[in-house]
Amino acid sequence: MQDTIITSVEYESRLADVRARMDLAGLSALLVTDPGNIYYLTGYNAWSFYTPQVLFVPMAGDMILFTREMDAKGAHRTSWLPPDSIVGYPERYVHRPHLHPFDWVAFALRQRWLVAPASAGSVGLEMDSHFTSPKGVRALVHNLPEWKIVDCFELVNWVRLIKSDTEIQLMRSAARVTTKAMEAAIEAIQVGVAQNVVAGEIARAQALGDGDAWGDYPAIVPMLPTGEAADTPHLTWTNQPFTSGDAVVVELAGAHRRYNVPLARTVMLGQPGDELLRLEEAVAAGLQAVLDTTRAGVPASALAHAWNWKLAEYGLEKSSRLGYSIGIGYPPDWGERTVSIRSEDETTLTENMTFHIICGMWMTGYGYEVSESIRVTADGVETFTSFPRGLIRR
Amino acid sequence: MQDTIITSVEYESRLADVRARMDLAGLSALLVTDPGNIYYLTGYNAWSFYTPQVLFVPMAGDMILFTREMDAKGAHRTSWLPPDSIVGYPERYVHRPHLHPFDWVAFALRQRWLVAPASAGSVGLEMDSHFTSPKGVRALVHNLPEWKIVDCFELVNWVRLIKSDTEIQLMRSAARVTTKAMEAAIEAIQVGVAQNVVAGEIARAQALGDGDAWGDYPAIVPMLPTGEAADTPHLTWTNQPFTSGDAVVVELAGAHRRYNVPLARTVMLGQPGDELLRLEEAVAAGLQAVLDTTRAGVPASALAHAWNWKLAEYGLEKSSRLGYSIGIGYPPDWGERTVSIRSEDETTLTENMTFHIICGMWMTGYGYEVSESIRVTADGVETFTSFPRGLIRR
Repeated sequence: MQDTIITSVEYESRLADVRARMDLAGLSALLVTDPGNIYYLTGYNAWSFYTPQVLFVPMAGDMILFTREMDAKGAHRTSWLPPDSIVGYPERYVHRPHLHPFDWVAFALRQRWLVAPASAGSVGLEMDSHFTSPKGVRALVHNLPEWKIVDCFELVNWVRLIKSDTEIQLMRSAARVTTKAMEAAIEAIQVGVAQNVVAGEIARAQALGDGDAWGDYPAIVPMLPTGEAADTPHLTWTNQPFTSGDAVVVELAGAHRRYNVPLARTVMLGQPGDELLRLEEAVAAGLQAVLDTTRAGVPASALAHAWNWKLAEYGLEKSSRLGYSIGIGYPPDWGERTVSIRSEDETTLTENMTFHIICGMWMTGYGYEVSESIRVTADGVETFTSFPRGLIRR
Repeated sequence: MQDTIITSVEYESRLADVRARMDLAGLSALLVTDPGNIYYLTGYNAWSFYTPQVLFVPMAGDMILFTREMDAKGAHRTSWLPPDSIVGYPERYVHRPHLHPFDWVAFALRQRWLVAPASAGSVGLEMDSHFTSPKGVRALVHNLPEWKIVDCFELVNWVRLIKSDTEIQLMRSAARVTTKAMEAAIEAIQVGVAQNVVAGEIARAQALGDGDAWGDYPAIVPMLPTGEAADTPHLTWTNQPFTSGDAVVVELAGAHRRYNVPLARTVMLGQPGDELLRLEEAVAAGLQAVLDTTRAGVPASALAHAWNWKLAEYGLEKSSRLGYSIGIGYPPDWGERTVSIRSEDETTLTENMTFHIICGMWMTGYGYEVSESIRVTADGVETFTSFPRGLIRR
C-alpha cells in the first residue's frame, strides 16, 4: 500500500527543510495538523482528518503521528513512519464535549519524555489550519503549561512552495486528469442537460484519469456557476437544465496522488452578448500579459501589475487576488495558502513554484473565468494543460 | 436559485429553537462557522467555506452573515437572508499572516452597534468546528475585549438532531441517491477492475441520483478499503485492480440538497474465508439486535449494549462507536457531531432522530462493514435503504 514514488531521500530532504525553518523561527518542536502537510512529511493518506490528528516534529529525534486508534493501521499502511512512530488515541476521546483527543496526546508526549526537550524554545502550531480547533489548542495549553505555543504561520506550507522534480511529474500527471475532466465537462454541457448530470460526467472522468495518470479525488468538487449566477464563484450544482444563452463557468481540478491541478473555462451555449465578448478579449490579453511576465526572479506582485495594467486598458479591474500556490490538496482547499498573486505580495518567484492563475471576472448578473495552472521556469513559464484560452462555444 | 423547499415558517422555527438553547446557556449572541449550521439557519450553500465565514446570531434582531466579498453574491442567491444581512469582507484579509477576516468582522459588528448588546451575557462560539481557527478566535478576543467568548458546544448541531418531516423527506431522497450509488459500486467491483474506475462509477451515480432525487456532492468521497487494507476504515482508492479473494469494503453516501445518507457494504470477490463468514453472521445478528432495540424513548446506550451483548456471544467486540447522528453534511464530515451510539451516551432517542449505524469490524489483516442509516420512529425504526445485510458475493 505504501506509495514509494517519493524516495526516502526526498522525505529526509523535506524534513530537513522544515527543521531549518523551525530553527530560524526558534521552534523546538512543531505540531502539524493539516493533512496535506502530514502527507508531505510522512506519506500518510486517508480520509481520517475529520477527527483530530497531529504530527509531532521535534528538532531532533523521531516524528510521531497521533491519529484516532482505528486510523493508526491506515497510517502503518500508507506512511513510511516506523511502527513506534504511529500512535492511536482511544476512541472515547472522539466527539466528547468535555474531552479532546489532544488531552490524551499531551499526556502521551509527557509519558515519552518529549515535553521537556521541546520546552527549550517555542512550540509551533498551525493556528489557521482547518484541522487545529480552538478546543484542541486549549487542551494543549492546559496540559502542557511549560510550553510556549506560538503560531507557526503555515511553516510546512512554505516549505512545499518550491516543488521537487518528482512533484512536478506528479502535477503533470494530475494535469492529464484535469484535461480529461475538462473535456468531459465541455462534451456534457448542452442545452437541456441538467447541471448534476454534467457534474457526474466530470466526477467520473476525474476518478478515471488518463491511464497511469489515474485520478485521485480533488480537494474541491466541480463548481458550475451558470448564467446570472456566474457573478459569484463558488456555487456547486443543482438539477437545473442548461438553457440557450447560458455562459457556464466550469472550475475543476484533476488530482493524482493528492496533487491537484485546477483549471477554469467558460462554456457558451448560444450567442455570447457584447459584454461577455469584451471580457473574453480583455481576459485573454490580461492572461497573456501575466504569462509573458512570469519567470524566476520576478516578484509575485509583478504578475498582478501586468494583469491590472492590461485590464485597465479595457476599463476593467478585478478586486480579488489573481492566483495562489498549488500542489498537494485536501478538502476543503486546493490552494497551498502561502503565496498569493496580488500587488501586495513581494515573494520572489523561483523555478518550480506552481500557481493557479485564476482570471475570474465576477460582474453583476454575469461572469467569466479562464485560468491556467503553471510552473515557473528559469526563463518563463510552463502551463500544465493546453486548452484554448477563449470562451468555449457549443 | 434560492431553494424554497424549506419554508420560512421552518426557518423561523429553527432559529427559535437555537435561541431557546442560547437562552438556557446564558448566551447573548452566537457565532456560527460550520457551513452545515449556516445552511440550516439561512439556506446559504456554496463551496466557500475554505475561507472564514461566520453567521452572527443575536438573541434579538437580525442575523448577519459575513463572507468573503466574492461570496456575498452567492449568499444573496441561495439564502433567504435580506440583502442588508449579508456582508462581504474585503479580499485583502484572505490568507494574510498578520490579518484575519475576523479582525474586519469584529470592527463591522462594532460599527453596527451590535457589540454592546451582545455583552450582556456570554457569546457562544463553535470551538470544535473545522471552520473556527485559533487565529480567528484570537482576532475576536483581541478586537472584542468586552465579550466573554465561550464554547457553545455544538449548539446548532444539537438543534439539528431531531429532523422535521420535510428534512426526513429530503433524507429519503438522499437515500435514493445512496441506493443508486451502492448499486453502481456493486456492479463495478470485479476482478481486474481498478479501484479508481469503481470510484468513478460511484461518483457519477452519486451526482446523477434518481430522477427528482438528484445527487448533490456527499461530504466524504467513496471509501474502498480492500483485502488486507480493510482492517482500517478510511482509506480512499488507488489504481490497484481488485483480485479474486478480495473483500472490498464500500462506504459511501448519497446526498440531496446537502442531506447525506451513508451506507456501507462489503463485496466479496471469490470465496470468503471462515473468519469473514463468522463476522458476517455475528454482524448480521448484532445489527438485527440493534434495530430491534431502537425506538423513541430508549437511551442511545441501549443500542450499544444490544450490540455488545450479541457480539459477545460470538466472542467478538468492537472498540469504536457503533454510530452517530446524521443529516446535513459538508466536507470533511457527514456526521452531525452530537449523539454517538456508544455505551457512555445516555441521550434519549426521539422520533425523527436519524443515525448511521456503522457495524465496522476492523480486524488484523481483514475487515468487514455493514451499516444502515435509520430514522427513529415512535415504536421502532425506519431504514432509509433496503440492501440485504450480508456479504455481497460477486
